[in-house]
Amino acid sequence: MHLDPVAYVEGRLRVLDQRALPNQQIWLDLSTWQQAAEAIETMAVRGAPLIGVAAAYALAMAHKTGEINEAARALERTRPTAVNLFHAIRRVENAPDPLAEAHAIKNEEIAANQAIGNFGASLLAKPSTIITICSTGSLATPGIGTALGIIKTAFQKNLLKEAILLETRPRLQGLKLNAWELSQENIPFRVIADGAAAAFMSAHSVDMVAAGADRIAANGDTANKIGTLMLAIVSDTFKIPFVIAAPTSTIDSKIPSGEQIPIEQRAASEIVEIAQTRIAPENVRVWNPAFDVTPARLISHIVTERGVFAPPYDLGAIRSSAEK
Amino acid sequence: MHLDPVAYVEGRLRVLDQRALPNQQIWLDLSTWQQAAEAIETMAVRGAPLIGVAAAYALAMAHKTGEINEAARALERTRPTAVNLFHAIRRVENAPDPLAEAHAIKNEEIAANQAIGNFGASLLAKPSTIITICSTGSLATPGIGTALGIIKTAFQKNLLKEAILLETRPRLQGLKLNAWELSQENIPFRVIADGAAAAFMSAHSVDMVAAGADRIAANGDTANKIGTLMLAIVSDTFKIPFVIAAPTSTIDSKIPSGEQIPIEQRAASEIVEIAQTRIAPENVRVWNPAFDVTPARLISHIVTERGVFAPPYDLGAIRSSAEK
Repeated sequence: MHLDPVAYVEGRLRVLDQRALPNQQIWLDLSTWQQAAEAIETMAVRGAPLIGVAAAYALAMAHKTGEINEAARALERTRPTAVNLFHAIRRVENAPDPLAEAHAIKNEEIAANQAIGNFGASLLAKPSTIITICSTGSLATPGIGTALGIIKTAFQKNLLKEAILLETRPRLQGLKLNAWELSQENIPFRVIADGAAAAFMSAHSVDMVAAGADRIAANGDTANKIGTLMLAIVSDTFKIPFVIAAPTSTIDSKIPSGEQIPIEQRAASEIVEIAQTRIAPENVRVWNPAFDVTPARLISHIVTERGVFAPPYDLGAIRSSAEK
Repeated sequence: MHLDPVAYVEGRLRVLDQRALPNQQIWLDLSTWQQAAEAIETMAVRGAPLIGVAAAYALAMAHKTGEINEAARALERTRPTAVNLFHAIRRVENAPDPLAEAHAIKNEEIAANQAIGNFGASLLAKPSTIITICSTGSLATPGIGTALGIIKTAFQKNLLKEAILLETRPRLQGLKLNAWELSQENIPFRVIADGAAAAFMSAHSVDMVAAGADRIAANGDTANKIGTLMLAIVSDTFKIPFVIAAPTSTIDSKIPSGEQIPIEQRAASEIVEIAQTRIAPENVRVWNPAFDVTPARLISHIVTERGVFAPPYDLGAIRSSAEK
């Protein structure tokens, strides 16, 4: 897929507005770092690796106006969980040529996606049914994707029977974004309600469950889209390999375990309104964390661009060497 | 709650149209058994116990026009999973006075709800957090409800801290119906996305998970709303008691295990459209069973109007004696 959802062209950032998909393809033309920060905060740009790239370009834009420190602090406040954001900010802040560094981050992520796809597909022995959650393809990363990158690579290698997409409430990234992306590439898939994952596993043979990550602690505990923990638990019950696919830029070596990962709480409107329509009665209270943390013991493999890791995970050293 | 969602008044059936809730309270005025069958099939009336009551009155209406056999066969085709439907049809078909029998079924269900609420609340030792799925109150039964009846009874006895409602995709019965009903009664609750159940259990102390049932096999395997199996598995992981609440009219003594329960597949539109708005790209395929089957080994208790049962379940005899 040649989609480039965050492209820096002649001093401006051209961004595909994911909030409007799949019904409309709206491209935002961002000329200031403030606009870029807003695009991240309002989830026009989403997906941990893509957030990192967008933040890198935002800082490159801020550098030109002498606002790099102010911009860095503002960008840090946009989304608290995705660690790629903080890694990208630190790299660009400290780089002699911020724009060159932003380009480098993007190119590294594109290459990492390709490697993750190949490593992940290497875990499959035959045409496989793979369940996945959220949006983890070319709308969440600058390349082919992480978990969805494994699905695409498997398809190319005749190792995909069917992808099963969790619709992924509350924002329905599976139903809207993953479905749109796989439709574009004619890759076979079906969508299920999130709660139907266990029933699907009970009724069908499933070969792999693959999810992305927003932050991975040194011990392998992984923060990802709300629902991932549920999916990992039911995968364990049905003895299906549960794989986390992420670039090493998603590893936070400073955090020993998942307990230290900050979890973003989001607005009630994400639950009580759908498609601009009020669904719930008035005054309904909700609990709406954007992410949950899956303990490392439920993760069969962590697939990165540097290879496939198995438990017990000790990812601190991997990330530290990558940062050098 | 004095709501009476299926009321037989002077030869007509007055039914609250659950499809319009919570935004509108629309009452359907049904004067023929065919209209009543349609209300069941299109889910204006839903919930296994309430479907049974509506079918009983539909047959009483058909009796007056000499169409009872034809109506019975048509009603059997409306919803395949809820066994209360078949039990009610058999009782009214064989009764000397069909209308009296329909009234009797309704009154028995109202009394059963009350007993279920009391038996269920007796399992709680202190003010409790109870997670539940789908709609199981006065919109799913003719009385206070099954799982929601336990929550309401617990609230009255100062044994409820908070109810946590799964929104229950695809039709959002938790977000729309359970939330509306608890709001009416000022019972404290929050709504979560279905996939957030495991994360909620990980972050909070939960005392009970309670669900209703559409059909219970003799060995305790239980068909209920899609998502119930997921909820039972994560409850088991977090060592939270998982309770099925249902009248004995929901037990199918002729079916030894859950494998024999027919599962209704519903339209793709339930997934790809929400609030009359197309959410997914065109031509998206879905897998959309209305129910899943939870194995008896994951069910801590089955709470009926005849008492609380614990594994191993042998429910065939209980139901047989109830039918006499």
